[in-house]
Amino acid sequence: MALSTMIYNHLPTSQHSINRLSIIHSHQEVALDRPQTKTSNPALRLTESLSHLLHLHLETPPKTNLHQSNWNLYSEEKHSTPTISPKEVIAQKWHDMQVSSDWDNLLDPLHPWLRREIIKYGEFAQATYDAFDFDSFSEYCGSCRYNCNKLFEKLGLSRNGYKVSKYIYAMSHVNMPQWLERSNLVDTWSKDSNWMGYVAVSDDKETSRIGRRDIVVAWRGTVAPTEWFEDMQRKLESFGHGDAKVEHGFLSIYTSKNDSTRYNKSSASDQVMKEVTRLVELYRKKGEQVSLTITGHSLGGALALLNAYEAASTIPSLPISVISFGAPRVGNIAFRDELHQLGVKSLRMVIKQDIVPRMPGLVFNESLQKFDDITGTLNWVYTHVGAELKLDVHSSRYLKHGFNLPGFHSLETYLHLIDGFVSTSSTFRLDARRDVALVNKACDMLVDELRIPHCWYQMANKGLVCNAHGRWVKPKRDIDDIPSPRVEENNVHALEAGMQTQDVLKPLYSV
Amino acid sequence: MALSTMIYNHLPTSQHSINRLSIIHSHQEVALDRPQTKTSNPALRLTESLSHLLHLHLETPPKTNLHQSNWNLYSEEKHSTPTISPKEVIAQKWHDMQVSSDWDNLLDPLHPWLRREIIKYGEFAQATYDAFDFDSFSEYCGSCRYNCNKLFEKLGLSRNGYKVSKYIYAMSHVNMPQWLERSNLVDTWSKDSNWMGYVAVSDDKETSRIGRRDIVVAWRGTVAPTEWFEDMQRKLESFGHGDAKVEHGFLSIYTSKNDSTRYNKSSASDQVMKEVTRLVELYRKKGEQVSLTITGHSLGGALALLNAYEAASTIPSLPISVISFGAPRVGNIAFRDELHQLGVKSLRMVIKQDIVPRMPGLVFNESLQKFDDITGTLNWVYTHVGAELKLDVHSSRYLKHGFNLPGFHSLETYLHLIDGFVSTSSTFRLDARRDVALVNKACDMLVDELRIPHCWYQMANKGLVCNAHGRWVKPKRDIDDIPSPRVEENNVHALEAGMQTQDVLKPLYSV
Repeated sequence: MALSTMIYNHLPTSQHSINRLSIIHSHQEVALDRPQTKTSNPALRLTESLSHLLHLHLETPPKTNLHQSNWNLYSEEKHSTPTISPKEVIAQKWHDMQVSSDWDNLLDPLHPWLRREIIKYGEFAQATYDAFDFDSFSEYCGSCRYNCNKLFEKLGLSRNGYKVSKYIYAMSHVNMPQWLERSNLVDTWSKDSNWMGYVAVSDDKETSRIGRRDIVVAWRGTVAPTEWFEDMQRKLESFGHGDAKVEHGFLSIYTSKNDSTRYNKSSASDQVMKEVTRLVELYRKKGEQVSLTITGHSLGGALALLNAYEAASTIPSLPISVISFGAPRVGNIAFRDELHQLGVKSLRMVIKQDIVPRMPGLVFNESLQKFDDITGTLNWVYTHVGAELKLDVHSSRYLKHGFNLPGFHSLETYLHLIDGFVSTSSTFRLDARRDVALVNKACDMLVDELRIPHCWYQMANKGLVCNAHGRWVKPKRDIDDIPSPRVEENNVHALEAGMQTQDVLKPLYSV
Repeated sequence: MALSTMIYNHLPTSQHSINRLSIIHSHQEVALDRPQTKTSNPALRLTESLSHLLHLHLETPPKTNLHQSNWNLYSEEKHSTPTISPKEVIAQKWHDMQVSSDWDNLLDPLHPWLRREIIKYGEFAQATYDAFDFDSFSEYCGSCRYNCNKLFEKLGLSRNGYKVSKYIYAMSHVNMPQWLERSNLVDTWSKDSNWMGYVAVSDDKETSRIGRRDIVVAWRGTVAPTEWFEDMQRKLESFGHGDAKVEHGFLSIYTSKNDSTRYNKSSASDQVMKEVTRLVELYRKKGEQVSLTITGHSLGGALALLNAYEAASTIPSLPISVISFGAPRVGNIAFRDELHQLGVKSLRMVIKQDIVPRMPGLVFNESLQKFDDITGTLNWVYTHVGAELKLDVHSSRYLKHGFNLPGFHSLETYLHLIDGFVSTSSTFRLDARRDVALVNKACDMLVDELRIPHCWYQMANKGLVCNAHGRWVKPKRDIDDIPSPRVEENNVHALEAGMQTQDVLKPLYSV
């Protein structure tokens, strides 16, 4: 595909024209009644018009007027429907699944209880994006905007019945400019580390519903897949004591540490394993059955597998599941086989149109013909793990079907398609309840008729507030939301107390 | 200048790389410690990284770490300073100015009381942007987001001591795709018209301070200057009864009407003249001295001159001033001379680096060498009117000085430079109080050290709100903010009542 087309397709419409300077067409083609591409950003609009002024007549895609009627009906009806499907007690079902081999007879058709659980874990993964501080003018860039006691409440996830017990931070010794978010400021909470995810535990009510105390690890992914492309070939590294090899980029994020840092004196691996081990012991001491579910999107899905491998190798007889979304290949066949031998159950959600799950293979298979001869080799070197739930953008009438890289890879697109998935042989289910608007949070995938703006997830005035003197200022972050290794250490004990008292959890739980 | 550079410079930094696909550089150049351009928009970030993945290594401008220290001092100190300079009683001064010829001895150095007044009128013009509905998914796209009784309150302009009496709507028979904002929807408040400005009147307190009942007309401009470039030459049209000729694009917006429309059964000209005449008679009946001040930015400044010409021709002995910002040339020398004979006082604020005031001449002078031979002619055809206050981006240390078309043309940039302007021979005044952050509302002009995000003026989640069922929906507009010709007609009378009762105005006035 022509690059211009590619760029064209996965940019918000308002910027098409600016990104297609190469495409000139006769001015006469601009019809009087055809509204031009709109944007509320005057900078972009002036850019557009000045290019125009300088005889760079920019092509803007024709806009058809939207007939609301039927879609309004849809919206009206939908707007008064809860976004959460009812939860059923799955204690027994979960046990059956654990004893059965990988997700047999549950995926096609997708069993409703499993769909509900997959979305729950997907929302835990989504939280790592929604709460992440991307503001390079903030001294807390790369951290979580809320402390771990507020995270779920702030994101409306309390209803899932889990409580965050610990945050995980990661750094990398590999050059991953697209991964590590850094503040432009000199005085910053951390020069080396990023918030990379968290550990959470099911509360008593959720625990009884799902039939075990469920420890969740959610790994933040990245919207920039370049990091695992970096010198991929020569950097396949051993992992564990066997023949397992994994891509060194992921491994570097998972294992890097440096005594001179504030947040990675211990590695992400050390942090997560210490906390998971602590929790497993805590609840096993109480005679509870415990499980570990590790989730992540994109890069986060890759880290989830490394984490699962390590947990399965070090904690005996712990049921471990990996629920990943749009994750790339991570390691070689030995890695896959050892994971299987360790009893790790892995379920990979994959959108057919998403290229990321085809990486690292991608650049060899799809992009660079000259590499074709070694493609086979690479597909052999990098292989996927566990069961796959294949999703298709075309199954949803709410989605635009045009080429859209970020849209196809977006976790919210995954959750929407899972919510509507029944089986490979049937269409999008009509009683899917998850809010369709969420899909456009950070991309432009919804059909215009829905009238949901693209990339709408944004702060009012980018976080600036008008103070008493009439000045627009960046407010200081709440003291209890400022990252602090000590405070986060203490929180762990607060949790233990919390888990013994229903009262502490009740306010977190809403039906 | 190369186009890429041009586009490069006036796009928000986060989009540089996407807009510079042509510029490839060696991958090795990406230094480990150099943070990449950031954006909180995952779509753009994935685009960026995938172009990268496909070997389109995008150039991103080097980012230097920002040393806060001195700037923090600046900020801390500034943050606790009111943004409004004290107002002095200027009744006498205004009379002197009216009898004296055009702004003599007031501009260089700029007299503090005049600076304060210019900024007041500039804020009235800025209001037409800040309250405009640009959302093409809204059925009210192209209207004002608030009704005229709420406008100043919503924008924090009540302190200026004026009350809006009427909104002005305009359409155009000329093809101006970049000017007219249209909804994508079929059912919309108006298919033909846009909110184009408003008429306001000083309240009693402000009236006594400034020495007359001041009627203000504020015209909305446009961030897209193409419309007056369209077939500029052959479309110079007669205006008034003399030799005056003006650019037909402006004239079309000012005079177009159509019986089949909701908002332009009468033209913008008819609407504004009817309201201004009504107000002049109303206050003259009360024995008050009345003045008319017409303001506008860009296109709005052009309309202000047409409006002034008509008002001066039809309302005898009414003191009329035009305060324009970054306005283009409008008409021929006869137009200028007649305006002068009619006693219209015009003051044009012009930023040296802003190209718009050099239009229509621009494309002939600056862009297309082949037209050089007729440049003189055109400069003669299109001429500026009245006195000019020349501003220079380089005078402010708060501004980036790199080429930035939208930044140079932005009204907020104008207001910032006026606030700091003392005289052509002296530097930016240190006691300038206007909030510097406002400059970046819709462009990227502030130096990074100030840590003000670019284009920060935006709604939370683009106006979507989470309803009781957990769904993100576009809320219906307040009933009293839905445009309605009848309601707006009635409002006029509400005002008259209002103007007689101090009580009605008091809440609108704050020091």
